Amino acid sequence: MSKRVILAYSGGLDTSVIVRWLTDRGFEVITYTADVGQGEELSEIEEKALKAGAVKAIIDDIKEEFAREYILPLIRAGALYEGKYTLLSSLSRPLISKKLVELAHKENAHYVAHGSTGKGNDQVRFEVSVWALDPDIEVLAPVREWEFKSREEEIEYALKHGIPVKATKEKPYSYDKNLWGVAIEAGDLEDPWKEPPEDAFELTVSPEKAPDTPEYIEIEFKEGTPYKLNGKEYPELWKLIWDLNIIAGKHGVGRIDMVENRLVGIKTREVYESPAGVILIRSYDEIESLVLDRFTYHYKLEHIKAPYAKLVYEGLWFSKLRESLDAFNNEIAKIVNGTVRIKLYKGNFYIVGRKSPNSLYSEELATYSPQDAFDHKAGGAFTKVWGLPLKVFARANKK
Amino acid sequence: MSKRVILAYSGGLDTSVIVRWLTDRGFEVITYTADVGQGEELSEIEEKALKAGAVKAIIDDIKEEFAREYILPLIRAGALYEGKYTLLSSLSRPLISKKLVELAHKENAHYVAHGSTGKGNDQVRFEVSVWALDPDIEVLAPVREWEFKSREEEIEYALKHGIPVKATKEKPYSYDKNLWGVAIEAGDLEDPWKEPPEDAFELTVSPEKAPDTPEYIEIEFKEGTPYKLNGKEYPELWKLIWDLNIIAGKHGVGRIDMVENRLVGIKTREVYESPAGVILIRSYDEIESLVLDRFTYHYKLEHIKAPYAKLVYEGLWFSKLRESLDAFNNEIAKIVNGTVRIKLYKGNFYIVGRKSPNSLYSEELATYSPQDAFDHKAGGAFTKVWGLPLKVFARANKK
Amino acid sequence: MSKRVILAYSGGLDTSVIVRWLTDRGFEVITYTADVGQGEELSEIEEKALKAGAVKAIIDDIKEEFAREYILPLIRAGALYEGKYTLLSSLSRPLISKKLVELAHKENAHYVAHGSTGKGNDQVRFEVSVWALDPDIEVLAPVREWEFKSREEEIEYALKHGIPVKATKEKPYSYDKNLWGVAIEAGDLEDPWKEPPEDAFELTVSPEKAPDTPEYIEIEFKEGTPYKLNGKEYPELWKLIWDLNIIAGKHGVGRIDMVENRLVGIKTREVYESPAGVILIRSYDEIESLVLDRFTYHYKLEHIKAPYAKLVYEGLWFSKLRESLDAFNNEIAKIVNGTVRIKLYKGNFYIVGRKSPNSLYSEELATYSPQDAFDHKAGGAFTKVWGLPLKVFARANKK
Amino acid sequence: MSKRVILAYSGGLDTSVIVRWLTDRGFEVITYTADVGQGEELSEIEEKALKAGAVKAIIDDIKEEFAREYILPLIRAGALYEGKYTLLSSLSRPLISKKLVELAHKENAHYVAHGSTGKGNDQVRFEVSVWALDPDIEVLAPVREWEFKSREEEIEYALKHGIPVKATKEKPYSYDKNLWGVAIEAGDLEDPWKEPPEDAFELTVSPEKAPDTPEYIEIEFKEGTPYKLNGKEYPELWKLIWDLNIIAGKHGVGRIDMVENRLVGIKTREVYESPAGVILIRSYDEIESLVLDRFTYHYKLEHIKAPYAKLVYEGLWFSKLRESLDAFNNEIAKIVNGTVRIKLYKGNFYIVGRKSPNSLYSEELATYSPQDAFDHKAGGAFTKVWGLPLKVFARANKK
Repeated sequence: MSKRVILAYSGGLDTSVIVRWLTDRGFEVITYTADVGQGEELSEIEEKALKAGAVKAIIDDIKEEFAREYILPLIRAGALYEGKYTLLSSLSRPLISKKLVELAHKENAHYVAHGSTGKGNDQVRFEVSVWALDPDIEVLAPVREWEFKSREEEIEYALKHGIPVKATKEKPYSYDKNLWGVAIEAGDLEDPWKEPPEDAFELTVSPEKAPDTPEYIEIEFKEGTPYKLNGKEYPELWKLIWDLNIIAGKHGVGRIDMVENRLVGIKTREVYESPAGVILIRSYDEIESLVLDRFTYHYKLEHIKAPYAKLVYEGLWFSKLRESLDAFNNEIAKIVNGTVRIKLYKGNFYIVGRKSPNSLYSEELATYSPQDAFDHKAGGAFTKVWGLPLKVFARANKK
Repeated sequence: MSKRVILAYSGGLDTSVIVRWLTDRGFEVITYTADVGQGEELSEIEEKALKAGAVKAIIDDIKEEFAREYILPLIRAGALYEGKYTLLSSLSRPLISKKLVELAHKENAHYVAHGSTGKGNDQVRFEVSVWALDPDIEVLAPVREWEFKSREEEIEYALKHGIPVKATKEKPYSYDKNLWGVAIEAGDLEDPWKEPPEDAFELTVSPEKAPDTPEYIEIEFKEGTPYKLNGKEYPELWKLIWDLNIIAGKHGVGRIDMVENRLVGIKTREVYESPAGVILIRSYDEIESLVLDRFTYHYKLEHIKAPYAKLVYEGLWFSKLRESLDAFNNEIAKIVNGTVRIKLYKGNFYIVGRKSPNSLYSEELATYSPQDAFDHKAGGAFTKVWGLPLKVFARANKK
Repeated sequence: MSKRVILAYSGGLDTSVIVRWLTDRGFEVITYTADVGQGEELSEIEEKALKAGAVKAIIDDIKEEFAREYILPLIRAGALYEGKYTLLSSLSRPLISKKLVELAHKENAHYVAHGSTGKGNDQVRFEVSVWALDPDIEVLAPVREWEFKSREEEIEYALKHGIPVKATKEKPYSYDKNLWGVAIEAGDLEDPWKEPPEDAFELTVSPEKAPDTPEYIEIEFKEGTPYKLNGKEYPELWKLIWDLNIIAGKHGVGRIDMVENRLVGIKTREVYESPAGVILIRSYDEIESLVLDRFTYHYKLEHIKAPYAKLVYEGLWFSKLRESLDAFNNEIAKIVNGTVRIKLYKGNFYIVGRKSPNSLYSEELATYSPQDAFDHKAGGAFTKVWGLPLKVFARANKK
Repeated sequence: MSKRVILAYSGGLDTSVIVRWLTDRGFEVITYTADVGQGEELSEIEEKALKAGAVKAIIDDIKEEFAREYILPLIRAGALYEGKYTLLSSLSRPLISKKLVELAHKENAHYVAHGSTGKGNDQVRFEVSVWALDPDIEVLAPVREWEFKSREEEIEYALKHGIPVKATKEKPYSYDKNLWGVAIEAGDLEDPWKEPPEDAFELTVSPEKAPDTPEYIEIEFKEGTPYKLNGKEYPELWKLIWDLNIIAGKHGVGRIDMVENRLVGIKTREVYESPAGVILIRSYDEIESLVLDRFTYHYKLEHIKAPYAKLVYEGLWFSKLRESLDAFNNEIAKIVNGTVRIKLYKGNFYIVGRKSPNSLYSEELATYSPQDAFDHKAGGAFTKVWGLPLKVFARANKK
C-alpha cells in the first residue's frame, strides 16, 4: 500500500508545515479544505498546498450539508455544552472527518491526518470520527509527534522549506470559524478573571456600539426546520443561518464567555461568538414550549439536551447513540411548527412572542377572565391525590 | 374543637372577602401576613383584617428566614423551572405554610386557609406543604368553593359587608411579589404572541431606558453563600438580595417571558422580574465551573438542577427528596468560594470574570504558550482508548 | 346524540352490573370484550352481556396486535416499573381504550365506559388513553360513582336484575390476566409482611414443585424482535410469548412480589406472574450488552428504561413522549440480533450464554492470553488523562 | 528523596516478581497486604515478601473499615454496575490506595506501586485514587511496563531470583476476592456463549447441589445499616456480611454472569459471586419501597443508582461527586428502618416479606375491603387533571 495521506488543510502555518513534514517522511499528501462557512477566501488554498508539497489540493463547499446534517440535528436537540456553548467546533470535525474518509477511499489512501494538538478536544473528534467510519484507516497527528519545541522552531522549518509565514503581526488569538460561529482562544483570554478585549471578537459588535434602536425579527419553523427569516423563505438553510449571523451580530448578540471542561481533563476559558446559534436553539425551544405536552417537554429537558451536547463535545457524533437520539428528536420535530418573534438590542435578544398552528396554549383554560373553562373543583381533588404521599409520610414519621 | 382558622392574608380583596365569608360560616379567623420582601406597606393590614371580621391579625417579618432557608438552597441547587423561571412564587408558599401550621399549633386552630384558585400551582404548594408538616390540619380554599360567579358578585358581597374595595383603577395585571422577584399575570400577557407592555413591570426599567453606561459589579461567595456585593459584606442575606435587585433592576436585568407548564396540566404565559435571582443563580454556577471537577459539574447539571426546580414548582418542598438534594448541594457548597465580576448593561448581564481560591483552572495546563505542562502524547493514547468502542462497533457492523 | 356507550366488558360481576346500571340510566350499552391472551373462554360472554341488558356484544381477538404494538415496544425499552414490574396491566389498557374509541366512532357512540375504581391506576390509563385518541368522547366510570356501599349491595342489585352471580366460592384474590402475565391482588396479599400463599398463583408452579432437572432454552432475536424459541420460528409473536409462558411457568419462573407506588399516591403490595415477561426483557438486554457500545448502553440504562416504564404505568401511552422514545428504541433495535441461552431451574432463570453476529465482544481484545491485542501502554496514558480532574482537585484543595 | 516505594502486595507470582523487579531498579520496596476479607491465610505473606526482596512487609486487617466506609455507602446507594454487578473489586481498590498513601506518608516514600495490567479497570482505580489523595505521589505499574512477553518469561525470571512458583496446577481462572465477593475471569469464561463451568466458583454451590429445603432468613436495618441477621445483633458489620455469604452461598445464591463494558473501551465476560452483595442491596431497596414516598423513591431509582455505580466502577471514589451522593443517600438512610424476610432456595432468593416502623404502606388506604379510606371521587378528578395535557394535545393536533 502506498503511503498516501489525506490531510485536513486550513492553509495556515501548522497544516502547511505538516504537508512538508509528512512529505519528508515519505508520504504523498493530498490536502482537503472544506468551506464550512468560515467566511474566508479559499482561492489561494490550492496554490499554497501545492507549494508546500502536496500532490493534489481539493477544495469543497459543504456549507449546506453542514447546515442540514449537523447543525439542524443540534438545533432539534436543543444542545448546549455545559448549558452554554453552541458546539460550533465540535460539529464541524465529524463532517470534515467523513469527507477525509470518503476521499481516502476514493484516492486509495490508507492514512488521514489533522493538525490538532494533544491537549484539545479536536484530536478526539477527528480520530474517533474517522475510526467510526472506517476502523482500518490510520490517523496521523503530526503536531502531537513532531520535534519542534517552540513556534520559533516551526517557523524556522517553514522558512527553510519555502513555506510562506505571514509577516504581519496577527492578533494574539487563535480562531476556529464556521457557519455556526467562532471559537476564540489564547492571549489574554487565558486569564478567566479578565474581561475579553474587544479586539478579540470577529462576528459581533460590542453591545455598547450596537444600534440604539431595537430590531425585531421573526423566525418561522416548519416541521422542525427554520425556513423563514423575516417572512423570506430560505430553501438553503445555510443562508438563513448566514443572514441571521449578520443581523444578530450587528446587535452584539451571541457572545459566550465561560470556563469549560475539556474531555481531556483540563479546564479552559473559552470565548465564542454564535449569534445564529444562540437564537435558533432558544427559538426552537420556544416553539416546543407551545406544542409539547409537559411530560414530553420535561423529559427532553432532563434527559436529552445535556447528554446530546456532551456526546457531540466528546467526539461521539458517529455513534448509535447519536442516531438514536436524533430519531427521538426527529419524532418531535414533526410538530415543531410556528413563529417566534425576537427583539435584538444592545447585546441581548428577547423572545417577545411565539405562536403555532398546533399550540397547546389555550386561553380558554389559562385565562383568569370569566371565560375560564378549567374545572376548579378538580384542582382541589388533584391536590389531595398529588400530596397524599407526603401526608402519609408525615403521619408515619410523626408517630 | 373550635372552628378556628389561620388565614394567609394579603390585605387584598380576595383574602379580605375570605375573612368575612369564613366568619359567616362560623369560623373564628386569625389572619397571618408575612413580610417576605414584597416591599409593600403592611401597617394598615391589621386594621383591614379586623375590619373584615378577623379576631386577630398577625404580621411577621420573615425576610431573613426566607433568604437563608428557601432562597439560598435554591441558589445552591442552580434550579430554574423549565430552564428559565427562578421559582419566586413557588418558594414563598412553603415558608408561609410552615408559619400557618406553627400558628395553628400555637393558637390551637384545626384549620388553615388560603386564597388560591383551583387552577393554579399555589393551591398545591399551600396544601401539600401544610399536610407534610401536619397531616391532621384541614386546609380551606374558599375561592375554589364559593358561590361568586364573577368578580362583580365578589365586589358586591364585599361592599355589602363593608370591606373596602379600592376605587382607583388598578393595572389590569395580577402580581405576586417577594424578595426573590415579581410574578405578573393576566391582561394582555395572556396572549403569548404579544410583547409584554412596559406598564406591566415593577422591578426593572425597560432596557431602552437603562443607563447608557455599563456598570460592573462583583459578588463574592464563601462556602456557598453570597456574602459580599461590591466589596461590602452583608451579614443579612436578604439585604444583599434586596440591594442587588435595585442595582440590576435599574439596568433592566432580570425579565423572564415564557410559556410555562403548570402542574395542573395547562400552559400559561408568565412574565417575571427576578434581577437578583437570575444573577445569583448564574454566578453560583460560574464559581462551580471553576471549583468542581468535570464529573461532579456534569452530574449536577444533568441530574440535580431540573429535578430540583420541578419539585419546588410542584409543591414538594417539605419532602425527603428536597432534604436529600439539599444534602448533596450543601456538600458541594463547602468549596464554592470566589468572586464573580458582572457587567450590567441595557437589559442584560455578562459574566466577565471569575476567580476562586480553590479554582481548578490551571493556566499551566491550559495554555498554548511554551509553558504548557500537559502531556500531549498522553492525549493521543487517551483518544485511542476513548474511541475504541466506536472503532470496534465499526468493525463489527462492517462485516 | 343518542346516549350510546361502549363498555369494556369482562363478563364478571362488576361489568355485568354496569351494563344494567347504565341501561337503567337511559344508555344503550354495547359491550366490547378483547381477547388479549387472558386464556379464558369467551364463548359465553355474548350471552352474558345481552342478558345483562346490552344491545350488542362484540368479542375481538387482538392478541397479535397486543404482542406487536404494545409488548414488543416495551421489550425494546427494557422497561420494568420500579425496576421490577413488567407492566402487564398497564399495557393492555391503552390498547383496549383504542378499540373502544374505534368502536365508538363506528357505532356513533359518544361515550365509553370502564369498570375501574377510583383508587387504582387503570382508571387513569383508560381515561387518559381515550382522551388522547379522541378528546370529545366522554368516559363513564360507574364504579367510581354508584350508590352501592358494599359488595353485598352490588350482589343484591345483580340478583334483582337477573344477573348471574357465581355461587361457587371463588379465591379471595382479584386477578387481571393477559398474554404478558397475571396481576394478583387482595386477600392475604394486602399484608406486605406475609408470604404470598401458593393458591394465589395461576401461571407458575411453586419453585419447590418445579422439575428437579434444569431445562435449557434458546431465544433468538432478529432486528429487535424475538422470533425463534428453541430453534422454532414464530411468525406470530403472541404464540412465542404464549409458549414461553408455559415453558417457564412450569419451572416456577416469573413471580414478582413488591410494594409498589401507585400514581394516585398510595402504596400497594402487588404480586405478579410474568414468566415470558421477565425472560424476554432480560434477554433483550443481554443482546444489547453485546451489540451496543458503552456510551449507548449506559445512556439507555440511565435515561430510557425507568422513564419509559413510568410513562406506561402512569397512563401516558398515547403521548408524543412514548412515540419519541419508541423512535429511539427502534433505532437501536435494528442491530439487536443474536441468541440467548437460558437455564430454567426451580423458580429462577440464568442467562448462561449469549452470541450475536454483530457482537462487539472481541476475545482478541479481552483475553488475558498471549493473543492479547490491547495496547497496555495506552491504558496508562488513558488513566493519566482520565484522572487529571481529581489530581488537579487534590492540588487545588490541598493548598 | 530516596527511591522508596509502597507496593500493594498479594503474595502471588506477579506482585512477588514486582518486588524483585523494582529492587533491581534501585527501589527500596515496602509491601502492603490488606485483609479485606478475602479469606486467605496471610501468615506466610511476610516471609514471601522479604524473600522476594522487600525491606519491610506490612499486613493489615481492614475488614471493618472496608465494610463500614466502602460497602455500606454502596448498599445505601443501591448501586449495581450495568444493573447487575455488585462492584466488589471496584470497592476494595480505593481503600487499598488510601492505605498505600498513608503508609507512603508515614514511611516517607515518594512512590506507590500496584500489579494491575494496562487493559483493566484496576489500574485506573489505583492510580486515580492515589492522585486524588496525594497528587504528588508517583504511581508505578510494572506489569504495564516490563519486558516479559509471556507468562513463561515471567516464571523464568522468578525462578532465577528464587521466587517460589507454585508447582501445583492451579485452576485456569483468575480471582479477585474480598468480603463483598469474588470476581472470576479467564479460561473458558472468555467465551460469552459458554456456560461457566462449576469448578470456577468459590463461594457458592451449584443450584442443583443446594439443599432441597428452602431456608428463611431475616435481615433488620436500623437507620440505614443492616445490624441484625436472623435476630442476632452484629456490632461488626463485616461479620454480618461474612455470615450472610456463608448462609446464602450454601444455597447457590449470588452468581452473576454478564458481558460488561470496561472503562478502557473493551467488553469482557465477567462472572462474580456476591451472595451477601445481591441480598443486601435488594433488601435495602425493599425497605426503601416501604418508607420512601414515590417522588423520592423514583428520583433515587432514576438519578442515583446507575451514576453511583458508574463512578465507583470508573475509579472516582475519592471525588466530590461521591461525597455529595453519599450525603444524599445518608439523608435517606435516617429513615431506613425495618426487617426483610427472605427465602433462599436452589440458587435464588425471594423477598417474601418486609415491614418497617415508619412504613408508608397503609392497609386502610390500599385495601379493597369495605374499610377502604381512599376518596374515590378524588381519583376521577385527579385523572381529569393528570390527563389534561394529552387531551389538549389531541384537540390541537386534530384540527
